[in-house]
Amino acid sequence: MGNCPFCQNRIQEVVFDDTRNFMALYNIAPIFPGHSLIVPRRHVQSVMELTTPEFEELMDFTRRVTVDLLDVFKANAFNWTLQDREAAGQTLAHLHVHIVLRFPNDLPDPGDWYPLVKQNYGEILDSAHRPHLADKDMQTIVHRLRHRTGFKGE
Amino acid sequence: MGNCPFCQNRIQEVVFDDTRNFMALYNIAPIFPGHSLIVPRRHVQSVMELTTPEFEELMDFTRRVTVDLLDVFKANAFNWTLQDREAAGQTLAHLHVHIVLRFPNDLPDPGDWYPLVKQNYGEILDSAHRPHLADKDMQTIVHRLRHRTGFKGE
Repeated sequence: MGNCPFCQNRIQEVVFDDTRNFMALYNIAPIFPGHSLIVPRRHVQSVMELTTPEFEELMDFTRRVTVDLLDVFKANAFNWTLQDREAAGQTLAHLHVHIVLRFPNDLPDPGDWYPLVKQNYGEILDSAHRPHLADKDMQTIVHRLRHRTGFKGE
Repeated sequence: MGNCPFCQNRIQEVVFDDTRNFMALYNIAPIFPGHSLIVPRRHVQSVMELTTPEFEELMDFTRRVTVDLLDVFKANAFNWTLQDREAAGQTLAHLHVHIVLRFPNDLPDPGDWYPLVKQNYGEILDSAHRPHLADKDMQTIVHRLRHRTGFKGE
């Protein structure tokens, strides 16, 4: 957990909504506007480690955050994806659901989104070593999203 | 709905578990062993059209079916993916969650699974025009899964 990007205090800078057990983070290197992650506070790897109420909390929260993102970024389509355990391509051993908003003609073929998600991991992992997670644009976006969700920070 | 592969009666041949509102289908052209789909009985396009109890039923069922698939196919890793609406690459306008089981070294890079899911749509859509959905192998697998889940058919 010492090296886990989702277990660092500085992650709080990009949290824009939360529930008892989960946080919504704006992706530090979004592949499209609105690209966010839902992660548990606890360092668990798999959805199979969650109780049924925790799992329902995760999924209801994921859907609610998606509604807010679609509204703020004026989109109506999205992808969700989960890589659960190493053999599935999970490169960060802390459960995370990707929410990727989609816009008409954002890619030549709308089905070609996932290779960008995969590439994104390199950027997230690398960024853990950068002195500052957030730039001006990130602060602006997180501020807008917190305004929408009413999130006050930790 | 007339052309929707998930709204045809013959889809029952590959259903191996269900709940009040959802069905688990074995993919007619699995990209890896165990590749299945969770679909609503009703022809709805988006998870946003479901009530909260329906959405929780969908996700709890998806997780339960994944546990059964991991057990039957002796895997411990999986991907879930959702394309929600056209701009997100949803080529079948009937909500469906992909469950893709993963096996060590099934791909040179474990993150390269999604292009296969995308390619799979062509095979599903094409198959609607084939006279028989299921071959001997499919029947064997569906039988094994039904044995596991206790599903008796419609």
